[in-house]
Amino acid sequence: MDNAKPTSLTWKEKLHEIIYEADTPSGKLFDVVLLVAILASIILVMLESVESFDKKYHNFLNISEWIITILFSIEYIARIITVKKPWKYIFSFYGIIDLLSTIPKYLSFIFIGSHHLAALRALRLLRIFRILKLARYIGASNRLLFALKASKAKISVFLFFVVILCVILGTVMYMVEGEENGFTSIPRSVYWAIVTLTTVGYGDIAPHTPFGQFLASIIMILGYGIIAIPTGIVSSEMTKATATDIHMNTQSCPNCTKENHKDQAEFCYNCGHQLNP
Amino acid sequence: MDNAKPTSLTWKEKLHEIIYEADTPSGKLFDVVLLVAILASIILVMLESVESFDKKYHNFLNISEWIITILFSIEYIARIITVKKPWKYIFSFYGIIDLLSTIPKYLSFIFIGSHHLAALRALRLLRIFRILKLARYIGASNRLLFALKASKAKISVFLFFVVILCVILGTVMYMVEGEENGFTSIPRSVYWAIVTLTTVGYGDIAPHTPFGQFLASIIMILGYGIIAIPTGIVSSEMTKATATDIHMNTQSCPNCTKENHKDQAEFCYNCGHQLNP
Amino acid sequence: MDNAKPTSLTWKEKLHEIIYEADTPSGKLFDVVLLVAILASIILVMLESVESFDKKYHNFLNISEWIITILFSIEYIARIITVKKPWKYIFSFYGIIDLLSTIPKYLSFIFIGSHHLAALRALRLLRIFRILKLARYIGASNRLLFALKASKAKISVFLFFVVILCVILGTVMYMVEGEENGFTSIPRSVYWAIVTLTTVGYGDIAPHTPFGQFLASIIMILGYGIIAIPTGIVSSEMTKATATDIHMNTQSCPNCTKENHKDQAEFCYNCGHQLNP
Amino acid sequence: MDNAKPTSLTWKEKLHEIIYEADTPSGKLFDVVLLVAILASIILVMLESVESFDKKYHNFLNISEWIITILFSIEYIARIITVKKPWKYIFSFYGIIDLLSTIPKYLSFIFIGSHHLAALRALRLLRIFRILKLARYIGASNRLLFALKASKAKISVFLFFVVILCVILGTVMYMVEGEENGFTSIPRSVYWAIVTLTTVGYGDIAPHTPFGQFLASIIMILGYGIIAIPTGIVSSEMTKATATDIHMNTQSCPNCTKENHKDQAEFCYNCGHQLNP
Repeated sequence: MDNAKPTSLTWKEKLHEIIYEADTPSGKLFDVVLLVAILASIILVMLESVESFDKKYHNFLNISEWIITILFSIEYIARIITVKKPWKYIFSFYGIIDLLSTIPKYLSFIFIGSHHLAALRALRLLRIFRILKLARYIGASNRLLFALKASKAKISVFLFFVVILCVILGTVMYMVEGEENGFTSIPRSVYWAIVTLTTVGYGDIAPHTPFGQFLASIIMILGYGIIAIPTGIVSSEMTKATATDIHMNTQSCPNCTKENHKDQAEFCYNCGHQLNP
Repeated sequence: MDNAKPTSLTWKEKLHEIIYEADTPSGKLFDVVLLVAILASIILVMLESVESFDKKYHNFLNISEWIITILFSIEYIARIITVKKPWKYIFSFYGIIDLLSTIPKYLSFIFIGSHHLAALRALRLLRIFRILKLARYIGASNRLLFALKASKAKISVFLFFVVILCVILGTVMYMVEGEENGFTSIPRSVYWAIVTLTTVGYGDIAPHTPFGQFLASIIMILGYGIIAIPTGIVSSEMTKATATDIHMNTQSCPNCTKENHKDQAEFCYNCGHQLNP
Repeated sequence: MDNAKPTSLTWKEKLHEIIYEADTPSGKLFDVVLLVAILASIILVMLESVESFDKKYHNFLNISEWIITILFSIEYIARIITVKKPWKYIFSFYGIIDLLSTIPKYLSFIFIGSHHLAALRALRLLRIFRILKLARYIGASNRLLFALKASKAKISVFLFFVVILCVILGTVMYMVEGEENGFTSIPRSVYWAIVTLTTVGYGDIAPHTPFGQFLASIIMILGYGIIAIPTGIVSSEMTKATATDIHMNTQSCPNCTKENHKDQAEFCYNCGHQLNP
Repeated sequence: MDNAKPTSLTWKEKLHEIIYEADTPSGKLFDVVLLVAILASIILVMLESVESFDKKYHNFLNISEWIITILFSIEYIARIITVKKPWKYIFSFYGIIDLLSTIPKYLSFIFIGSHHLAALRALRLLRIFRILKLARYIGASNRLLFALKASKAKISVFLFFVVILCVILGTVMYMVEGEENGFTSIPRSVYWAIVTLTTVGYGDIAPHTPFGQFLASIIMILGYGIIAIPTGIVSSEMTKATATDIHMNTQSCPNCTKENHKDQAEFCYNCGHQLNP
């Protein structure tokens, strides 16, 4: 590490480059390794929850968990050392998640005999959120997010309307079907209305009286029509977002080289120079 | 209240402003308080229907219900006093709902011993409709409603077609599956067809014969294709509604009066004249 | 009927006008009465299939059925008398349906003792198809049908692809889950795959092995993505159909009065006359 | 076969034309016959898996299977003989499938007594993939595929996001509902989350606690909103793909070379010059 001095970067700066940046080969390698480790840790948490699997391979799961915990701990310490404002990182959203994803295993070491506390498992699950960082690596999602942001207000109004509709329909069904047919309370009936209107349809609660089935039919057909609304909103926003490309014209102004002229434009909208015919 | 006289508004006018208008600070506050009260009353009605909860917290629910009932009664009286044409309000849609949302609790007081009549509960549920007034507070829903109104005729034709299709498919399935497989009557079979075509799929009634399952498969694939229609209708209407705005710019050229300039345009695309900044 | 002679139309022509045309008041009335009769007959057939209802109101149902049957018979005879080419009508699609919707009841009269033959009920159901004539009364459905016709080829390719996918996925699941988990045969597994991919999800057959559930998850997410395709097809066709209106311009040519000019048009596309600025 | 010499093509070339090309009448006939044979073989494999059917018609199924196997073998040999580079075909994707679709039946002949090995059945199923060649015959699918390719990146991002969401929601529900309500492990809970979010809703696993049902309701409403996204993506891509065609007309004005004239245009909208008929 001392022999890093002759280079223009100190080992701290080098490590910072590897951990926080992704445009050098070693930085890319680090990201890929981290990604694999995160995915592996999620699969471990999932497999551990399968009782039959946990019984058979308890030792393997335990050791793997330790290896990943230690790796994450090293990563956590390295992040603190290399970053310029350590405290800012520690109390940032990802800083807290990074800490919480390593702590549970160490706690199981301290409190021997109680190493399967439900609370510990709960903390461990937060590690899953780490994978959300992946979004950074995907460029194609920007346009998608832009269209979604534009349609957020309309979709919120729509979902709010759906919830009100489900409360009303749920209470009506509670009165029609009654407690003897599984609609034991209004919240449960509202739950049923949501299950039906969203076309999920578990079938754990289903209307039994003819009038209840008639009402349910109307709710379903309503839901069939209603599902068109969010789709229409997103479609129109996306069409709008892509529409800028349609009427675009590949010609660039001979004077100022501006592009994106209207198809019928005869003069540049930027400098007023006549466009080539 | 008497000291309200020196101001330019009487206390009646002031109260009217608070209750019926929403652009003064006190008017806004009133609306928010009312909204919270309505939401609380809905939650109370829902919780009361949960038997285990009602047994435990019967007194708490009862007192809360009384508080909200009295608040709603005061609001109802205040509305009658402050409005210019009281009888018109009393017999309006919201006037009747306002009355019906307070009466049931008082009736339970008069008819002691029968304070859990089903009919009373039913009246109480109408209070939920009050929340629909919320739509007034949401501006973003106007455009949504406009697109929906434009596509109402087409969607009605579509839903009418779906109902006919379900009646035909239901009767065919009634003949194919028969009463021994749960398709005990044509209305029940039509109910099943609606459950299937809308992709809800409870599973309380499901085909058992191979031919019935074959027919059901066709219905499902049909339903998969049919769901595209309402979505297509709403999408196209919304795209149409937003298409006029694309690139549009209300400015017109001072020289040739051409409109529809691009947002960044500095010169008219038709005559090359500089646009107003 | 003889006193119809002094008018310019014979009673035959008058009756033809009432039955086959819909622009005179009496013609409109006839159509509405017929519509009500058809709807009533459908409800009668449905109610008759509900055993508990049939037992209680057997006589009422029987008499109502006779009234409607006689009305339909009179209508059938009137159609034959008034039409110019009776044989063409009798062997047309609606001619055959008109006959089949009256015959079953008469047959139940001839074969006393066997008046509840399943075959008779089957013929009676065809009466439902009569309601399809309603489509004629709805003008708004034309545009919808136009867009659907344009997207028919693409949707057929899509549904064909879905069926192939379901056959492949069904056979794979048959091998993975096996007969002990309800996937007793390939056709049944294909039925399950269709139920799952179309997001109906009855739950009468569901995967039990972990690997089967993993595969099912992939199928569901696939189905979630696939449902976008028919919707996209119809949406784009409808947007295309309405797009002609968007770029339209309300100006009409001062020379030839042609309309629908492009927004930037300076000369009429029809006669070459300069358009008003 | 020898008398094929006087013609300009050898019998090998003729056979190649029939098998590999589809523009001669005999080539078309071959394709149709092959298509029917493939469909028949798929139906045979499906029927064989239905136990009750297999018992009744075992001999018929066996003989039919032999006939199709021999036909496919002849086709396979013919393809090897007529193709220019036989080894390239044999090791190509379809070459291997062609071989695998004939081998299982011959193996059942060699290993008498074990003619119903599960592995053999598995190989036989690969024959289904042959039908995918059909895509070649359908021209209308090109445009569909083009729009899908364009939206592939966005849909992949979307499905990836859905999977992450299901993992998070699944683990939360595992903690909320617990093993006593059917959420026995995290993978199973994730499976449930996928079943719910995609609105399939089998009902084999369903939340029982009030809080679990509350969370499930949120997931369903979320899923109802999320389904709009892939649809919006495909819709906008398809609208974009078809937008270029709207009104477009490849003709350019002989005077000013302006393009994009309306289909019925007779005069240039820019300079008023008559367009070529």
